[in-house]
Amino acid sequence: MEKSALQVARAAYQPKVPRVLKGAVEAKEGAPTESVGNQKEIRELFPNTYGMPVVEFVASDEKQAKPVNVGVILSGGQAPGGHNVISGLFDGVKSLSKESKLYGFLMGPGGLVDHKYMEITDELIDEYRNTGGFDIIGSGRTKLEKVEQFEKGIEILRKLGITALVIIGGDDSNTNACVLAEYYAAKKYGVQVIGCPKTIDGDLKNEQIETSFGFDTACKTYSELIGNIQRDCNSSRKYWHFIKVMGRSASHIALECALQTQPNVCLVSEEVEAKQMTLDDVVTYIATAVANRALDGNNFGTVVIPEGIIEFIPAIKKLIAQLNEVLTDPSTGEPRAFASADEQIAFVKGSIEQDNLAVLESLPSDVARQLCLDRDPHGNVQVSLIETEKLLSRMVDTKLKQWKKEGKFVGKFSAQHHFFGYEGRCAAPSNYDADYCYSLGFNASRLIASGKTGYMSIIKNTTAPAEQWVPGGVPITMMMNIERRNGANKPVIRKALVELDGAPFKYFASHRDVWARQTSYVYPGPIQYFGPSEVCDQCTKTLALEQAK
Amino acid sequence: MEKSALQVARAAYQPKVPRVLKGAVEAKEGAPTESVGNQKEIRELFPNTYGMPVVEFVASDEKQAKPVNVGVILSGGQAPGGHNVISGLFDGVKSLSKESKLYGFLMGPGGLVDHKYMEITDELIDEYRNTGGFDIIGSGRTKLEKVEQFEKGIEILRKLGITALVIIGGDDSNTNACVLAEYYAAKKYGVQVIGCPKTIDGDLKNEQIETSFGFDTACKTYSELIGNIQRDCNSSRKYWHFIKVMGRSASHIALECALQTQPNVCLVSEEVEAKQMTLDDVVTYIATAVANRALDGNNFGTVVIPEGIIEFIPAIKKLIAQLNEVLTDPSTGEPRAFASADEQIAFVKGSIEQDNLAVLESLPSDVARQLCLDRDPHGNVQVSLIETEKLLSRMVDTKLKQWKKEGKFVGKFSAQHHFFGYEGRCAAPSNYDADYCYSLGFNASRLIASGKTGYMSIIKNTTAPAEQWVPGGVPITMMMNIERRNGANKPVIRKALVELDGAPFKYFASHRDVWARQTSYVYPGPIQYFGPSEVCDQCTKTLALEQAK
Repeated sequence: MEKSALQVARAAYQPKVPRVLKGAVEAKEGAPTESVGNQKEIRELFPNTYGMPVVEFVASDEKQAKPVNVGVILSGGQAPGGHNVISGLFDGVKSLSKESKLYGFLMGPGGLVDHKYMEITDELIDEYRNTGGFDIIGSGRTKLEKVEQFEKGIEILRKLGITALVIIGGDDSNTNACVLAEYYAAKKYGVQVIGCPKTIDGDLKNEQIETSFGFDTACKTYSELIGNIQRDCNSSRKYWHFIKVMGRSASHIALECALQTQPNVCLVSEEVEAKQMTLDDVVTYIATAVANRALDGNNFGTVVIPEGIIEFIPAIKKLIAQLNEVLTDPSTGEPRAFASADEQIAFVKGSIEQDNLAVLESLPSDVARQLCLDRDPHGNVQVSLIETEKLLSRMVDTKLKQWKKEGKFVGKFSAQHHFFGYEGRCAAPSNYDADYCYSLGFNASRLIASGKTGYMSIIKNTTAPAEQWVPGGVPITMMMNIERRNGANKPVIRKALVELDGAPFKYFASHRDVWARQTSYVYPGPIQYFGPSEVCDQCTKTLALEQAK
Repeated sequence: MEKSALQVARAAYQPKVPRVLKGAVEAKEGAPTESVGNQKEIRELFPNTYGMPVVEFVASDEKQAKPVNVGVILSGGQAPGGHNVISGLFDGVKSLSKESKLYGFLMGPGGLVDHKYMEITDELIDEYRNTGGFDIIGSGRTKLEKVEQFEKGIEILRKLGITALVIIGGDDSNTNACVLAEYYAAKKYGVQVIGCPKTIDGDLKNEQIETSFGFDTACKTYSELIGNIQRDCNSSRKYWHFIKVMGRSASHIALECALQTQPNVCLVSEEVEAKQMTLDDVVTYIATAVANRALDGNNFGTVVIPEGIIEFIPAIKKLIAQLNEVLTDPSTGEPRAFASADEQIAFVKGSIEQDNLAVLESLPSDVARQLCLDRDPHGNVQVSLIETEKLLSRMVDTKLKQWKKEGKFVGKFSAQHHFFGYEGRCAAPSNYDADYCYSLGFNASRLIASGKTGYMSIIKNTTAPAEQWVPGGVPITMMMNIERRNGANKPVIRKALVELDGAPFKYFASHRDVWARQTSYVYPGPIQYFGPSEVCDQCTKTLALEQAK
């Protein structure tokens, strides 16, 4: 592998870890726990892994030194720091005993089921320390949900003498990790399962988990780009930039980027939903910001948009739900077939309710057409194909033209569009993520050594210097409740959405009117790995605000 | 202005300058020069500024210490380092005398004509040292070409006691700087004009100018993103990413990014034109790379595309030329009017030659439609509206589907698209650009002190440590020839395209077959400002290869 100068220099970085993890530890156990909701149901579903205590590691004199064979799986979308979880885990199991072995299952959970794996060696791990990506063993989206999969898994685990499995994933993957832990515990297979909180979306967090890894680096990478665009915007003074960032279910990324860069407008899906805003309300909100800045002669600006915004607008959500319904044949449950696109559109328009029809017809015609026609393999409307940033800027343009006629807009409006997703998911981890991930992985080895299963590896107090970070574990069942998913009730980890009464949103809300009218741009620049600590070692604004409360 | 931690830390950076510029200098003059082409015509057009010698500054005992009032203009698109040219110039003129003054004309050359300006003070410049963007005084695209403009300019220059003007711009702006220098010299107005070589496109370079500023930072920023995408691509192993980068006239950016990141495919417009490739040739070239990688089970990859590629395909160029022709009414020179879009398309198809019609009909129907319909205010086809990265991936998809039927393609093909332009133009300058720009600006003050006009500020030997850089000046007329522009012969600086027998392209060409088949990605990561010199102080691969010859 040919390496860049930065990769070479960065390979030598020794991640900072909590002081406690530098020596032998013992698990200090709290009181039994309850799930965040549906306690009775969750307890019944997880008889072997429910009610376990939260664990905090403290220094100990006693050395745990038994060798252990561990398997590791990367599940779902990439997030910066995955390689550091694995290198921390590697160093952790090797520190228990040189005889310990770490195996990686390839291309995600499917590797466990299909018995595709490799041993992770010293030479291999040294190639990947402090690097971005999940390419060391690959990742995949196979869901571990079925007994057949669990049974296929135990075959290879037994063959390799693996007694503990670490699953690095988001909320769904950790839910499944817990189901697997419960299954193996019930069967007394002697395999522990430990989860690690990963997702750039930042929506896997709660009282126990301060943040999911990758969020820090991804947001800093997107903020670098938004800052660069804002500097351009403020130099040429002629465009409004509509910038969409990842985040379908939650707007943490958009909000964090706004806190870092202070754009003129940032939409927050959770607020749009809570205020029951219509698409026209959203468009009017943006157009008003444009019109106000035009009064000051500023015909330029930036708008940050979370990827999922469209689906949070109640009227659109309702329209999509009905489109999915009418396009399905109730007798077969299959997508309806049509002779032509025109026939399909006519059918749709004749079948949906008047208010939904009105919403459909308020959309630009090509978007409306796309909504009526394009469906995914399950027959569902493909909302993700809509280029929301372009849809919004076009509707803003239309509204401003109307306002111009009415004398309510005196400026010019010209838009540029951007979408940032893949640009940040595999960035090399920031110091924060490098340290946090390495600690999560190392800590997972201590949960294993302590005999825990159905736990997630956690590190708390991460706004303090790493020395003072607090390692431990939380029972996954504690974070669960029952939710309706794909037409069935399921035990799931509750997703953390942006809280409108949380500190990050409140900070944003109290500043956004000034940011909207004035030019208050901040330019964060690229992630720095060397240099002053105030540049290199800061956590996200979201985390700092949340922990300051 | 609220600042990020990096901005604060970076403000303290003291750019490295050539040793010679640290003390008093004198101009060592070479032999009289000739223009690179059309010597007779250029000499006649520039009687007062033609034939001047190349200048190199050497250390001197004699201190030049007369105060001077200088004006500075940012012209055209933003490029990282513009603020450092101004801060170098500021420090330079102040080092001549504390009494010297520097004025910035606002929002580009228009500021000179409209008498919009501000004095650049110590406090102001300190806010902008080592930052990206042109926002200190703004930039604009007004062309300084007319006598009325020059005369309006001299009014304000006289009023402010300005005897030297520094114009920071690309090839066209420097051409105009030279025309202005000649005019003021002919009129004996006593105002010197000095140019500085700016453009991220990298196409303003020659025997005298090693590189244009901003190219280094912009390419490194795009390469950071391409590297991140490649790491994602190599982790999820399911997409081909089509990544378009800026560069309409030349492919230096695409080529440099390819040298930094080693993608599977990189198109070079100059090669496409030289080999007289058709659109189908280009599509086949990419599809072949996809098919070959599929043989190894690798259904993923990256394709880097220069923005201008479409216009370099001879058949498309010919089609566009004829579209422009037939859509213009010959009797009025105005765009033809049509009753409807369908009528317009029918007219176009009935009016163009058979081979052009065949090319038009080989395009996806919406692109063909767009080419026939959308025109800019001058009535020209809007080639820049075509999303080339999507056009190419769709045509590759169509070809692969055909090949699949024929048994010539065994894999899967799914594409993602990216376009990077505004993301890099205003990035904070890399150390290279920070040092280079500051030196160019400081050096411009020395050209002024030496009484030069019609010169461009140059710094040579920039692949060596900055101490050893060689400052000087080159007569702008030396870089000129006569070219046909907008239907008239004009003296212009010759644009530097990618040379197919130059070292950078040759290096690329000798490696690309391996890069195409294998996964040879390099991940440069974000620009670093602190840390080891091999990480922070490297120039572009293009420059290193060119200067190594």
